[in-house]
Order: sequence, then structure tokens, then C-alpha cells
Amino acid sequence: MSRLWDRLMRLAEIGARGDGGVDRQALTPGEIEAWHLVLRWAEEAGLEAATDDAGNLFLTRPGRDRTLPPAVIGSHLDTQPNGGKFDGAWGVLAALEAVADPGFIPARDISVVAWSNEEGSRFAPGMTGSEAFAGVRSLAAIRALRDAEGVLLGDALDTLHAAFPHLPRLPLDRDFAFCIEPHIEQATLLEEAGLPIGIVTGIQGKITWEITLEGEEGHAGTRDMALRRDAVMGFARMAARMQREVGEADPIVKFTIGRVQVVPNAPSVIAGRVVFRIDLRHPDNAALEAHGARLEAIAAAEAAPCRVTIARLVHAPSNTFDEGLRARLAATATRLGLPHRELLSAAGHDARHMAPRCPTAMIFIPCRGGISHSPLEWAEPAHVEAGAALLAATVKELCA
Amino acid sequence: MSRLWDRLMRLAEIGARGDGGVDRQALTPGEIEAWHLVLRWAEEAGLEAATDDAGNLFLTRPGRDRTLPPAVIGSHLDTQPNGGKFDGAWGVLAALEAVADPGFIPARDISVVAWSNEEGSRFAPGMTGSEAFAGVRSLAAIRALRDAEGVLLGDALDTLHAAFPHLPRLPLDRDFAFCIEPHIEQATLLEEAGLPIGIVTGIQGKITWEITLEGEEGHAGTRDMALRRDAVMGFARMAARMQREVGEADPIVKFTIGRVQVVPNAPSVIAGRVVFRIDLRHPDNAALEAHGARLEAIAAAEAAPCRVTIARLVHAPSNTFDEGLRARLAATATRLGLPHRELLSAAGHDARHMAPRCPTAMIFIPCRGGISHSPLEWAEPAHVEAGAALLAATVKELCA
Repeated sequence: MSRLWDRLMRLAEIGARGDGGVDRQALTPGEIEAWHLVLRWAEEAGLEAATDDAGNLFLTRPGRDRTLPPAVIGSHLDTQPNGGKFDGAWGVLAALEAVADPGFIPARDISVVAWSNEEGSRFAPGMTGSEAFAGVRSLAAIRALRDAEGVLLGDALDTLHAAFPHLPRLPLDRDFAFCIEPHIEQATLLEEAGLPIGIVTGIQGKITWEITLEGEEGHAGTRDMALRRDAVMGFARMAARMQREVGEADPIVKFTIGRVQVVPNAPSVIAGRVVFRIDLRHPDNAALEAHGARLEAIAAAEAAPCRVTIARLVHAPSNTFDEGLRARLAATATRLGLPHRELLSAAGHDARHMAPRCPTAMIFIPCRGGISHSPLEWAEPAHVEAGAALLAATVKELCA
Repeated sequence: MSRLWDRLMRLAEIGARGDGGVDRQALTPGEIEAWHLVLRWAEEAGLEAATDDAGNLFLTRPGRDRTLPPAVIGSHLDTQPNGGKFDGAWGVLAALEAVADPGFIPARDISVVAWSNEEGSRFAPGMTGSEAFAGVRSLAAIRALRDAEGVLLGDALDTLHAAFPHLPRLPLDRDFAFCIEPHIEQATLLEEAGLPIGIVTGIQGKITWEITLEGEEGHAGTRDMALRRDAVMGFARMAARMQREVGEADPIVKFTIGRVQVVPNAPSVIAGRVVFRIDLRHPDNAALEAHGARLEAIAAAEAAPCRVTIARLVHAPSNTFDEGLRARLAATATRLGLPHRELLSAAGHDARHMAPRCPTAMIFIPCRGGISHSPLEWAEPAHVEAGAALLAATVKELCA
């Protein structure tokens, strides 16, 4: 097998689960160990390592003119608690291969990036590294996030930085020449078409909400039904109608209520509070907004006799990646003999936050059955190599 | 204030919440602390303390003929996590007052009882103490219950017993002369009628279920709506229809879903499993059965495309308390000048399990607004005293 494949398997040992999956969540000792390993590989290749206040990692091949904005390629090193070996990791290691040749002196700096906390499983919502970099969220707001144990993201970030005292800190909000993020598809379009390469046209839009229903606790055996303000019943009414009027009303929309917290959650107590999360996605911004407005109207209409609070957490419209960069990727893929197609990303990626700042694109490779965020996640070695070859060739053309 | 009131307030300090409520769940360090306190009061009164293998506590005033079956009076010391100061505690402390006078030598033993785990909030379903005593559930099945942290009831029970190594163990399944349980009403009939005393005719029937919906986990951003097996959506559909067809269809029924557990309960992951509890009550056994059958039919009909498992946990038909004992309580209340009425208990109580074994009755006092299982639970000092006076006088008459 290739060095890239060997490194993917070696990296997957850090946080390895017994079932073949990887649990290497953001800002954990596992991620620190992963940095040590990747920094060793970067040093062997003669790359310059640096971080920034948001915990992003940059490994830079110096170019001939160091005053030019760097090109940036890469993805993330953190995983879901039930993650796999390829989500994020492949993008970083493929980028490392693209600048590994010490004989290649690019026209400008090329930085391999590992964005901090893409997954958002420990500290939610995620993409904190790219959002802090791009000014989408403030560093202060990000540092104030807490994990389930109450640990501040800011404290975990300080622990990470303390483990690498020699790394210089680059500023946030720097200019880039262009950005390319390689990633597994996490869906089945490429697999179904039998293609090794996808060139991503954009990322579907996403809105998330936290909805809080405040009712009144009471005794399950005595309280008159007519007098109840039962937060679970409010939730059920609301969720069932949202599913009918949004989830089942559009073949493209993705509507999910994945987290529901009931208080006090005791079998014989009428629930006084339910807090739940809505995740809504759509590639068309007008449809996304229309469905979002409908969900908010249903939440308001079905709440009584409970009180409802509707809070939008994430509002990321769909975006379109740079047409010139997409055309360049397509031409290079054709030159390399790699069959490819354009496709839309259903999942979010850090590249979303670079797209408004510089020409940005993504390269997808297939993953088996579209399965991701699962120990079953798998990418074929031939696809892993094909995607990395396309990235390397494109970067060499653009930075010759 | 009286000694009884002072003790109620003192006991409520154990497990006190910041909001005036009490969190003293079954078989916790708080309940052990409550036992220490109540055992001190029993010792001061010269009562004999004992326990049994189910974790019930008995504090006995020895009678003249110790070969006769004892009279048993009392209730329970555990609370809901969001409990109040009176539910259970008043019944135990009122019973303690009824046998407090060392000069009263009854004809037979009179035992104050604190039944174990009445509430069933930590280890569900509850009433494990009286059910093990009465043989309604086996001790082995009860010891195998687990709390939300996975702790076995059996282990928690052993911890309780280890804290009181000097207490002798009485056998389960003993004969009693009669049983009286004093309790707050947890409804508003007495308050609305302006009466201090209720004499309970019976307890409405109750069926509880644990329903498990098995779906399939998936990525919230990529999985087609049409292909999903979303356990939260199955739950919402089911619960909303149950509420319409049972909860809102009968002015007497009580229908509650108080506990809902979602797995993995992550905002961007389609839920693979939902486990929830149904609590159904009705004073008419035929109506109880009909509503129960309807709920099971809805669970089966609305489950697809998820798989559903429907498990009945508790099936307690409505019962009638002893007419002779009720007449005695009414006569004594009249003699003491305490206005009273008969009423049905909407809530379940340990007395339900004594009723088939010996003459059994219950004394209710009003609680403000009918509110119970809430920090707002409140009983007026005058009612607390009136109910205790009726119990003490009745016990003295029956055991003179």
C-alpha cells in the first residue's frame, strides 16, 4: 500500500474503538496525539508548522514569493464519538501528500490545514475553527462553549496550545489565494455512478433550532386532562405536524429532530419541560427559508397551553463553490484519466466558510454505502489515491 | 407549631432542593439519612425497629398480646426527584404520633410502616416494598431493577441494610389485623368542598407500559426522508394519536407519557431508538381495559417503518377499601368534629396491596391546588393535625 494509506491506518490507531471505528473528538488527548504524529510527518517533509488562537493547525510548504497569500488545502482531524477512519483525516493526509515533495518549490506558500472542531460532537455546534477564522462566530463565543461535563472549549483549547509551546500563532482572518477541501462523500451518488471523483458544486443550506416547551409538572394519576399543560404532548403534536407539513412535503428537504430532553422525565410525572433540536437542510435557499418559517409557525401554533421559546442556533445558507476552480479540477481529472461528475454536498464542511473569502472548491471520493459517522465508514484504497492525485496535480498546476 | 409539623419540616431538610421541594429518592443516601432521623424518634418513643428483605421499615409499639397479628399504619419516606414535603412523609410521621404515647399499651402490636420505593422514580415501577411484601412481585424481580445509571435495586438495598446492621429482619408476607394509610389527596375534591378529611373508598385502576421503538441511525444532512426509520418521528405520531383518541376522549381517564429516552440523542443523528413509558388510569376497570387496548393498537399501527415492542409493566385494577374500617373512620371523624366525605383515590398507594390481605383504608387530607410531585406541594398545618388526630383516635379505639 501507499504511504498515504499507511498513514490513514496509522492515524486511525489514535482513538481506535474496538469495532473498527475511531473516537477522536475535538480538543481531547487523542487529538493532541494526532497533532504530534502529523507534526512529525510535516517535519520530515520540511514543512513549517503553526497554529492560531482558534486551534487550527497549518503546515506550510514555503513558496518562492512569501508575500503572496497562501493556497490552503486540507480538512480536519477530529471525529464523531462513533466516527470512522476517513472523515476529515483523508483530507488532511491527502493535502500532506500534495506538498510532500521537497523538490517542488511552489510560486506561493501552500498550507495544509486541519480545522479545529469540525464535528461539534463534544463542543456543539461545530466548525469552530473555520468559523472563528472567517469571523462567522467570535472567538469569545466559541471559547465559552461547554462540553457535556461542563468543560469550557476555551480551557480545552489552552490545554492543546500548552502541549505545543513551540508553535507560532498565525493571525485569524488571513487572505488565501484559494482553498480546496478533499473529503469522503458521505452519500451514495458516486458509488451508484461508479465514479472515483466528485467535484462539489456547493453545500446545501442548514438551519438548526433549539425549541423549549414550558408546561407544568403534575401527578400523572390525579391531574385532570383538561387542566394539564403537558410538555411531552406539546412536543408530540408539534413534531408530528412538522413531519407531515415539512418532512413529508418535499422530496429534497432533510428534517430531523435528533435530540429531545424531557424534564423531569419520570414515568408518573406530567412533563414540565421539553427541549428539542431541529436540523433542517435544503440546497435551495428560498425553500430552506420557507420550510424554516413553516416550522417556526407550527411551533408557535401547537405550543398552547405550554409556552414556547424558538431559538435559531445555526443559519448557514446554501453556497456555490468557485466555477473557475471547479473547471480546473474537472480538466485536471480528465487529464489524469479520472472519471468524475459534479454533485452537491448534503453535509456541511469547513470549506463553506472559505467560499465567501477566496476561490474555494471540494473534491469528493466515494465511501461505501454512503455510510459515515459510523465505525462502518470505508473508502477504497484506489479512490483514496485518485482523490489525492487530483489534489496534488491541481495544486502543482495552480502554484507552479 | 406541633411536634408533628416540626418533624415534617425537619424531615424535609433531607434532600431539600433550593426551590422548597424535596429530592429524596428511594434507596439513596438521602433515604438512609431519613431512616436515621426517624429511627431516633422511634427510639425516643420506645418503639421496636425492624426491616425486611424488601427494605420496608417497621417501628412497633408492643401490645399486650404479642401473638396477635399487628395493626399497620403509615406510608413511605421516598419522594419523586421534584417531590414535596408531605407526599408519604406525612403518613409515616402521623402514624408515629399515633403510637408516640408510652402510656398507651395497645391490645396488639401496632407497627408504623415506611414502605420501600413507593414512588418508583429511581427504580421503576415503584411500590416495590409493598409488592414484595404482598407477593405481587417477586423479590428477585425487584432486586433486578436498574436505575438510570445501571445500579441494581438489589445492590442499593444491600447498601441500605448495611447502614443499619443492628435492625432485625422480619419475614415478608406476614398477617396484619388491619392497615390504615394516611396521605395527602393529590387532587382538589377536599379543597373544593372545604373539608379537612377524606375517607377513601378505593383506588382507580392503573396500567403502565414501556414501549420501545427501534429505527435506524443515520446522518441528518444526507439520509433521504423516504428511506428513514426515525424513532423520534414514530414516537411523535404515536403519542399525538394516543392523546387524541384516549387522553382527550374521556373526561375521567388519566393518560401520561412522562418518560422518553432517545438514542443516541444527538442533534444531527436520526434517532435509532426511543423508549417511553405510558401511565394510564381509570376508576372503571372496563374503561381502563378498553383504553389500554386502544393504546396498544395505536402503538402497533403507528410504529412502521420502525419496529415496536409493547411491554405491560403494571396492571393494577381498581379496588375497594374495607367498608367496616371506612365506617369506623367516619364515625370517629364525626365524634372528633372533623367534617369529612368519601372519595376515590386517583393516585396509587401501597394500601392497594394490603387491601386483599386485611381490612384496609386510607385517610386523605387536602393539599393546596391538588398539586403534588412538585416543590409547590403544600398541606395546611390544621389539616396535618386533623388527619393525624383521626388516625390516632381510630387506632386507639381499634386496639384498646
